[in-house]
Amino acid sequence: MRTSIATVCLSGTLEEKLHACAEAGFDGVEIFELDLVVSPHSPERIRDLARHLGLTLDLYQPIRDLEGVDEALFAQNLRRAEAKFRLMNRLGIDLALICSNVATATVNDDAVVADQLRRLGDLAARYGVRLAYEALAWGKYVNDFEHSYRLVQAADHASVGVALDSFHILSRDWPVEPIERLDPEKIFFVQLADAPRMQLDVLSWSRHYRVFPGEGGFDLAGFMAHLLRTGYDGPVSLEIFNDTFRQADPFRTAIDGLRSLIWLQEQARERLASEQRGEGNVRLATLPAVDEPSGFNFAELKGTEPTRLRQMLDQLGFADSGRHRSKPAVELWSQGDARVIINAQRGAEGRLQVAGIGFDVVEPLASCSRALQLHATSVQRTQQLGEEVLQVVSAPDGTEISFARLDDQGRPPWMVEFEHTVPNDGLITGIDHINLAQPWQHFDEAVLFFESVLGLRAQPSLDITAPMGLVRSQVVSSEDRAVRLALNLAPLGRGDHHGRFHEQHIAFACTDVRALARQAVANGLKQLRIPDNYYDDLQSRFDLDEAFLGELRALNLLYDRDEHGDFLHFYTEAIDDVFLEVVERRSGYDGYGAPNAPVRLAAQYRV
Amino acid sequence: MRTSIATVCLSGTLEEKLHACAEAGFDGVEIFELDLVVSPHSPERIRDLARHLGLTLDLYQPIRDLEGVDEALFAQNLRRAEAKFRLMNRLGIDLALICSNVATATVNDDAVVADQLRRLGDLAARYGVRLAYEALAWGKYVNDFEHSYRLVQAADHASVGVALDSFHILSRDWPVEPIERLDPEKIFFVQLADAPRMQLDVLSWSRHYRVFPGEGGFDLAGFMAHLLRTGYDGPVSLEIFNDTFRQADPFRTAIDGLRSLIWLQEQARERLASEQRGEGNVRLATLPAVDEPSGFNFAELKGTEPTRLRQMLDQLGFADSGRHRSKPAVELWSQGDARVIINAQRGAEGRLQVAGIGFDVVEPLASCSRALQLHATSVQRTQQLGEEVLQVVSAPDGTEISFARLDDQGRPPWMVEFEHTVPNDGLITGIDHINLAQPWQHFDEAVLFFESVLGLRAQPSLDITAPMGLVRSQVVSSEDRAVRLALNLAPLGRGDHHGRFHEQHIAFACTDVRALARQAVANGLKQLRIPDNYYDDLQSRFDLDEAFLGELRALNLLYDRDEHGDFLHFYTEAIDDVFLEVVERRSGYDGYGAPNAPVRLAAQYRV
Repeated sequence: MRTSIATVCLSGTLEEKLHACAEAGFDGVEIFELDLVVSPHSPERIRDLARHLGLTLDLYQPIRDLEGVDEALFAQNLRRAEAKFRLMNRLGIDLALICSNVATATVNDDAVVADQLRRLGDLAARYGVRLAYEALAWGKYVNDFEHSYRLVQAADHASVGVALDSFHILSRDWPVEPIERLDPEKIFFVQLADAPRMQLDVLSWSRHYRVFPGEGGFDLAGFMAHLLRTGYDGPVSLEIFNDTFRQADPFRTAIDGLRSLIWLQEQARERLASEQRGEGNVRLATLPAVDEPSGFNFAELKGTEPTRLRQMLDQLGFADSGRHRSKPAVELWSQGDARVIINAQRGAEGRLQVAGIGFDVVEPLASCSRALQLHATSVQRTQQLGEEVLQVVSAPDGTEISFARLDDQGRPPWMVEFEHTVPNDGLITGIDHINLAQPWQHFDEAVLFFESVLGLRAQPSLDITAPMGLVRSQVVSSEDRAVRLALNLAPLGRGDHHGRFHEQHIAFACTDVRALARQAVANGLKQLRIPDNYYDDLQSRFDLDEAFLGELRALNLLYDRDEHGDFLHFYTEAIDDVFLEVVERRSGYDGYGAPNAPVRLAAQYRV
Repeated sequence: MRTSIATVCLSGTLEEKLHACAEAGFDGVEIFELDLVVSPHSPERIRDLARHLGLTLDLYQPIRDLEGVDEALFAQNLRRAEAKFRLMNRLGIDLALICSNVATATVNDDAVVADQLRRLGDLAARYGVRLAYEALAWGKYVNDFEHSYRLVQAADHASVGVALDSFHILSRDWPVEPIERLDPEKIFFVQLADAPRMQLDVLSWSRHYRVFPGEGGFDLAGFMAHLLRTGYDGPVSLEIFNDTFRQADPFRTAIDGLRSLIWLQEQARERLASEQRGEGNVRLATLPAVDEPSGFNFAELKGTEPTRLRQMLDQLGFADSGRHRSKPAVELWSQGDARVIINAQRGAEGRLQVAGIGFDVVEPLASCSRALQLHATSVQRTQQLGEEVLQVVSAPDGTEISFARLDDQGRPPWMVEFEHTVPNDGLITGIDHINLAQPWQHFDEAVLFFESVLGLRAQPSLDITAPMGLVRSQVVSSEDRAVRLALNLAPLGRGDHHGRFHEQHIAFACTDVRALARQAVANGLKQLRIPDNYYDDLQSRFDLDEAFLGELRALNLLYDRDEHGDFLHFYTEAIDDVFLEVVERRSGYDGYGAPNAPVRLAAQYRV
């Protein structure tokens, strides 16, 4: 399927945008009018640049408020359109987007509108231009794609077809099945945009909150499946108005966009397959199947001064499994299936951070290949002869993601490279979840990355109150919850514009967190101190047994309850930007203690 | 009138918040529950801190979802409420906010709810606590203040009254006149919040977008007038949930909040006076009347290297009016009523910036006093004997605001302190407007500052497309448009998190901008280059005379038109963070060439 993207999706100058689209690997672009108007480069030079970059110029957009007007205004509008057709000739673009009139329409008469579309088509044809008529969700008289299609049919002109835009259709909850009945020859262009579900006026929603397919709440896969059933074989193009994308690195945004289109093709194919229907005329992008991870292989922490971390792991009952045989700066600590790799070798700024996450999969090579085809960055690792080849890619935030298959004893193959391979059997049984901070410009990208690469499912996002602002938190997890990642977006806050505030952590699963806390504290572990006021409030909310409450209080344990069961957890003090958590889930509790997160953030803010 | 503020309005720890409220000068605070729960300090210690700071603790809030439930749940809720009443005793707070049930209500029966409120009142009375029942705008059964008032009347308990919150009333467009009919003894508490008008679900609107009175779209003055007519004499308290305030310096936010309450009392008094009604029992804050500025006295630019600026002013036809007699680093350039002071002495970073603005007023001393009473910061200036005493304060962004009265010749009195006092008569007649960039955490504060201190009126805010994101732009202007300020909020953007991008400028009014541009270019002025594509688009939009269009193109002039007339303008190249503009307004054109702003921003982005 041909992929395209509107220049309005990206930050920067028109040339930067074209370079970003080409580098990501798009087939073509839509030129958004304002990007050209503000450019010092002639249309011919832009045309040549696109050709040089191997990009087709698929669409010029938008031409607004042309139809549904009286004859005097229509004459002016024809003149205005003609100037744009001339410009399109200079750009070498033969398709224009005509938006349904929102501002100047006074004639709500389909026969008049169809006649005006026909006359626009006559004019366009003289310039070799075709017109894709789009029903904007807030069009004055025309705001439904079926209506725009009827008008196009009535105009009955070879140069006039419709443009379908998923946002304008799905935001209004128009029925999507009728898409299948459209003549594919009359679908001149298709634009795709997702958006979070909001109760906001549709214009503001469209102008500020669109996101790439898979990053919002619309069923884009269903939309695509309906579209493919028509036999449509033209390009699908991203048109995203997003306040954050406008401020972000366009090269990254373009990759995020292309990833969404590749993933969407897979989703649409699966949708069609599930209904025993073919894919029509179009070759959809193929990907190795999702190999949903069944657990965490390891978590890797890097930093130049790991002494405190070693001590902390020791206090938590981890066994020092020794150094890596060929990489002396790398050591392994383990307890049950929880494996922590400490890497003292690297770490740009020296501060401790979560540098890598290993996932248990069945086919590591296929998982890695899937990630690379979804435009993850490949990571090269030096390897000694005979060592296990780890399949590694980089997530958008720079965390290294690797894939390995457990052996018959349930151990990852790379463990033999460490001095001692027998893990400690303690109260900690594995890694429950890992919490990663995301830069504010790339939060949606991160969510889609983990959804598309690992097949994780996004849970509803939460705003958590912290002393420096609201922290957006979104969990992505595997269906069986064996893998859970919490992605956090820190507020820009006061002073530190990078928003780093102990935002990464590793949470270990534990069978008896009270016993563990007692042992660890006896071993000298420094816990995050939880205020007395928290326990008073907890008691008012849950009416707990006084002895139990006293134990929680004494052990700095936090408590939560959902419809399944109870949750007990504690935090360690932070080391640089990282801290550890130990959790005990009882009877299938499925959350993360969200009501307790403000208590943690406030306590960490004071340190 | 007693002023109060909820701790949830502010960023930081509970102690930081209390210190900020006290330092701004509030009489009291509302303790927001979560602020206490996450605090390591005991209720007694918080009580003592407030006392030490001279703050009363006016309200504990919120206690949620108590009423409208079955008896089993109500028993639990009584127990939960009792724990909070005990806590309030420790805090020394005797008033609790009870929000109408949003989550657990199952009984939509006023008799049952009134009975439960009465029983809550009985329990509260045992602890010396009173309950202020608030109808949340999204309450399940109770979401209208008249309904909550009827329930309170039916409960008929001395310890049970209503809380009125302007957001919950005005967001739902409930009629406000009935407020006047409420028994003031039964209004236990009043919370004030403004908000921009949005078509967004009311919960999200309330939780993220509230602003201080005067910063949004609600008629808070009208609300206050109705309230005062009841005879209510309790505190008015700010309760603002705002994502930006949560990230901003709490000391600044608190001052912003108190300013809004002082201003609001004046607005309410004026509203009552206009209706020939008294102010009830309450002493409202008094302020010197607004002395609306009739023009710009001067603009002061400071920077350590003013050579290029001098050259540019010379090229634009300004006369060098010489140095200040006692301050050799200060010089004056003038043309018509446009006066530019160059100050080479100061400027922290050395970069050229707009450092001060002088306004023509009738009573400089009163204007300055008004500003200070509205918590502007006083600025001390060294003064020689016999020199004019300039009344100076600092605006929130640090720009120094001064006031002076023109003499009989229409000249500011301080001009005699410069070597030459005869201005050049040229094509430039004065300062048309000044554009100031605002830090993102304090944009709303800046708008209210200029509204309240100078009586300027806010125009609708615009989002302007720029290569690094959307720029929010809001004009505040005097009624006769003699004074216009454009306040800009830069996107955080790529790389430069301070968002500085040539964001300050001074626009001069001109009688013939084409003639001026020709002269200035002949004198060597470096204009901002406007792309050819802009003129092609202009022609398609306005169908201009070809010769006129050619002249615009040759002179890098931009063009716009509104319902009144035409607008022609050009920009200079930037010097550090400042550039100049020359504008010609024809036939009462009232805008700022907003459609051209993206062209300017894109051209500046490329430099």
